Amino acid sequence: MQSLRGTGVALVTPFQADHSVDFDAFARLIEYNLANGVNYLVVNGTTGESVTTTAEEKKQLLAFAKKQIAGRVPLVYGIGGNNTQAVIDLIKNADLAGVDALLSVSPYYNKPSQEGIYLHYTAVADASPVPVILYNVPGRTGSNVMAATTLRLAQHPSIIGIKEASGNMEQCMAIVQDKPEGFLVISGEDMLTVPMISIGMDGIISVLANAFPARFSRMTKLAMDDDFHEAGALQRSFLAINPLMYEEGNPVGVKFALEQAGICGAYVRLPLAPASDSLKERIKASSIGLEN
Amino acid sequence: MQSLRGTGVALVTPFQADHSVDFDAFARLIEYNLANGVNYLVVNGTTGESVTTTAEEKKQLLAFAKKQIAGRVPLVYGIGGNNTQAVIDLIKNADLAGVDALLSVSPYYNKPSQEGIYLHYTAVADASPVPVILYNVPGRTGSNVMAATTLRLAQHPSIIGIKEASGNMEQCMAIVQDKPEGFLVISGEDMLTVPMISIGMDGIISVLANAFPARFSRMTKLAMDDDFHEAGALQRSFLAINPLMYEEGNPVGVKFALEQAGICGAYVRLPLAPASDSLKERIKASSIGLEN
Amino acid sequence: MQSLRGTGVALVTPFQADHSVDFDAFARLIEYNLANGVNYLVVNGTTGESVTTTAEEKKQLLAFAKKQIAGRVPLVYGIGGNNTQAVIDLIKNADLAGVDALLSVSPYYNKPSQEGIYLHYTAVADASPVPVILYNVPGRTGSNVMAATTLRLAQHPSIIGIKEASGNMEQCMAIVQDKPEGFLVISGEDMLTVPMISIGMDGIISVLANAFPARFSRMTKLAMDDDFHEAGALQRSFLAINPLMYEEGNPVGVKFALEQAGICGAYVRLPLAPASDSLKERIKASSIGLEN
Amino acid sequence: MQSLRGTGVALVTPFQADHSVDFDAFARLIEYNLANGVNYLVVNGTTGESVTTTAEEKKQLLAFAKKQIAGRVPLVYGIGGNNTQAVIDLIKNADLAGVDALLSVSPYYNKPSQEGIYLHYTAVADASPVPVILYNVPGRTGSNVMAATTLRLAQHPSIIGIKEASGNMEQCMAIVQDKPEGFLVISGEDMLTVPMISIGMDGIISVLANAFPARFSRMTKLAMDDDFHEAGALQRSFLAINPLMYEEGNPVGVKFALEQAGICGAYVRLPLAPASDSLKERIKASSIGLEN
Repeated sequence: MQSLRGTGVALVTPFQADHSVDFDAFARLIEYNLANGVNYLVVNGTTGESVTTTAEEKKQLLAFAKKQIAGRVPLVYGIGGNNTQAVIDLIKNADLAGVDALLSVSPYYNKPSQEGIYLHYTAVADASPVPVILYNVPGRTGSNVMAATTLRLAQHPSIIGIKEASGNMEQCMAIVQDKPEGFLVISGEDMLTVPMISIGMDGIISVLANAFPARFSRMTKLAMDDDFHEAGALQRSFLAINPLMYEEGNPVGVKFALEQAGICGAYVRLPLAPASDSLKERIKASSIGLEN
Repeated sequence: MQSLRGTGVALVTPFQADHSVDFDAFARLIEYNLANGVNYLVVNGTTGESVTTTAEEKKQLLAFAKKQIAGRVPLVYGIGGNNTQAVIDLIKNADLAGVDALLSVSPYYNKPSQEGIYLHYTAVADASPVPVILYNVPGRTGSNVMAATTLRLAQHPSIIGIKEASGNMEQCMAIVQDKPEGFLVISGEDMLTVPMISIGMDGIISVLANAFPARFSRMTKLAMDDDFHEAGALQRSFLAINPLMYEEGNPVGVKFALEQAGICGAYVRLPLAPASDSLKERIKASSIGLEN
Repeated sequence: MQSLRGTGVALVTPFQADHSVDFDAFARLIEYNLANGVNYLVVNGTTGESVTTTAEEKKQLLAFAKKQIAGRVPLVYGIGGNNTQAVIDLIKNADLAGVDALLSVSPYYNKPSQEGIYLHYTAVADASPVPVILYNVPGRTGSNVMAATTLRLAQHPSIIGIKEASGNMEQCMAIVQDKPEGFLVISGEDMLTVPMISIGMDGIISVLANAFPARFSRMTKLAMDDDFHEAGALQRSFLAINPLMYEEGNPVGVKFALEQAGICGAYVRLPLAPASDSLKERIKASSIGLEN
Repeated sequence: MQSLRGTGVALVTPFQADHSVDFDAFARLIEYNLANGVNYLVVNGTTGESVTTTAEEKKQLLAFAKKQIAGRVPLVYGIGGNNTQAVIDLIKNADLAGVDALLSVSPYYNKPSQEGIYLHYTAVADASPVPVILYNVPGRTGSNVMAATTLRLAQHPSIIGIKEASGNMEQCMAIVQDKPEGFLVISGEDMLTVPMISIGMDGIISVLANAFPARFSRMTKLAMDDDFHEAGALQRSFLAINPLMYEEGNPVGVKFALEQAGICGAYVRLPLAPASDSLKERIKASSIGLEN
């Protein structure tokens, strides 16, 4: 699936002051990203606060995104969890027509064995009517999907790639080295996008691109076109702002950056708390020059 | 609340071969633990596979446990999560009559700031009709509740203690040092039970005690009675078996140990996978001598 | 060797303003420690800046310490390194009459295998005319001495114990569990002294005791006498000051604490730099109440 | 100094069966590397067992290397340590005519503050008659040279670069981003060579290149020429063998690989121990196909 190469954006879910979903802002966000060159969009990812949106809101967000995007770029939808049966039920109850792939995080908190991870994803992929992208993010899940497990799962006809946010370059290389033709290995760490493309990976699913889509997608494209001199310089230009995106929990930081850009409010739902004044000041200072 | 000192047991949820709850075995497990001196029981904790039991099963398990325990020891019930509103809704919909305290894990996966953790627990405690015990387990949640945050939360009238599974002795000492009178600081790591009591903590909520309640509760009692010579020896006797409890994910190991003891089957739900043959052999070998 | 139980002190090496050794202050330090109940003294340890004292100074310091201590307590002397032959040569050229034991750090920087560590210490112990204590401090050496290696070395007739500064309680328990009768397992982490004694260890070789010998040795003695209630409270009283001892490199902090106590100047040799003003202020504030 | 870009090789020091230096093999090693396209050579680095060669041997090795290389490529010589005065003395006593730069590891084991590291390197650079390259390898030294400290030191006229083996890509990017024109930022991790070049670094000082100079230097050159497709493939081809180089301590593994290649014996000095049979078998199997 060549179309999921380049810059994917894990879209935030904009809220209004009363913490209800702000669909107007969601439309603005989608248009802002499409106008600035990103390659595909991810709805209901972690950055989209999938943890705290309701089932009804998820349904509305997906329907809205499909209509707004209208096939201009591929649409990836997040469904994952640490209860295998519950994930299957969510898939069965979702309207996945028009969804190009699912992004499914590996089980968090309950720390299954590699065999458990394999069985979990096999059951999930068996149940899914659309292709599935694995998501490995040990810093959140407390559990690593080892390269051997990813490669074993890559044999499943419905499993088409992995978003790798382990930060472990050797683990990523091991997947790239032995993966089936066409299996996508996608960075899940914005600051490792260029280095990961340099060893053969297929792009990024990004947080930063929400707010800085032009610069971020230009960077990814340059790297994928083997122009690393310029790509490396762009990568380094995000050094100051990137840690601020996580300092008080994602998407607290990027939502404030989007508020600065006039795209949406910075409202988040508990247990996430609004950005502190100190964080806001530093995000403002670090954003200068990243608009283009 | 002095009654939650000593050995608490995070009970497993026994399943039958068809993965339905085995209530007969659950009764056996409760009796086995009570007959062997444990001080209180925890239902619907992580070890109880709270992640993969359904809402209806949770309701049945709690009702069953209340009836079986019949007030012989305190009963702690697990309700936690990473969506503040959802945790509040679970509390409101549970029948907490007869429950002595809630055990509520801090938000996993979405990594809130310390302010977010504070706001989350404050909202949860405000909503709870019974006392609340915090639960800090960074290896699962990807997020640490710092001592300063615990101490801030300890001022809430409904928050009566913390289960600390960070493994960070200095963090635990910092809580003990500045906590309000009566605030419970409970070990969440079986192998640190004795060391943690030595610096002023109040006992343990244990996994191992499910299968080895006599030895484990004797150990805790000796330490709390300042007989560390014997307590230390008992602590060391669990060295070989303890890592096997986690090697393929908890409660995979302890359920197999319980199967060996004739208490319940070793069945677990996905994404947890049954114990491998290698793990089984090592648990068998390491269990010898731990019965009493 | 029962006499190396309790509180050992890894003495600093006092310097004058011109960075030459201040023997008068060294005498004061020894007397201050002996007057306040410590059980034995360590000369030329890491805290004694063994890295930056010259061969001639080491010879003078050892001779001076022997004379000053005059057999009142045991004397341990530090000789270790990452070049096996060089360590052997140092041992052969030292006057070890009157030295009760050597303390020998495991090879740092070059990261030998466990077999290499075994061969190194075997050669060192074979060459030593006095008993040898191993020293495991992975945070400095970049290499861990595993429990199995320690237990293998514990069979050597000249190897009588280990100073364990891995911070790994289970590793320490594993040594205690299977060690030969009389083999010493000594904490190398001041803040884990009480917990480590609770699981059967034999005391501490301390940094903090240089400046707070009365309180520190009282704490150790209480724990070894199974009075953990009071020992735990004393352990917790060092919570604030302990990290300051390491924040700018040891012994920068403890030398400033000793300067405050009127024992010696705070001078250190490069690459250690003098305490910053911020550190000084915090050490002053945290020292209050620790004198007794 | 453009000439220190590309592939530098941290040469092993070959020994004979009696553990004396094998100068014939040293000559073979140098010629093997030069014949296969490496860009410069490092003598008396960590991989050269600088820890366990004597002062006299170091003098001979340097003189021999100068003569053998005869100006065909630049020569870097290792002098570092954790005792600032001792490092200065070593520099003053070395014959550095014909040496293009010193490679000087940051202080290991005694963990100075960033200010201490700054003062140490400033004193070292002040004393050096030739340019100095910093070396940051926290996994060995127990201490990190932060980007801000490196950038502060980069202002010193004699400090021309850093070998960065922290594995921290963001730290490396931060140095590249703000470094003075011409300051070299060199990878110290073989498996991160290509990713590090992709974000603007200047090459590698390599262990693997000793035994696989043709493939390794081709990889580096391709990356520096912005042909990442092929460079990434070559980088991945070292995935299996690289961890074997460190499993029992470096240069145990690479010396065995060199023995297989007929360049030198695999002898190492204590505390390093000879490769185990298991390691040998796996190195043999992993070497296949890496010759060219």
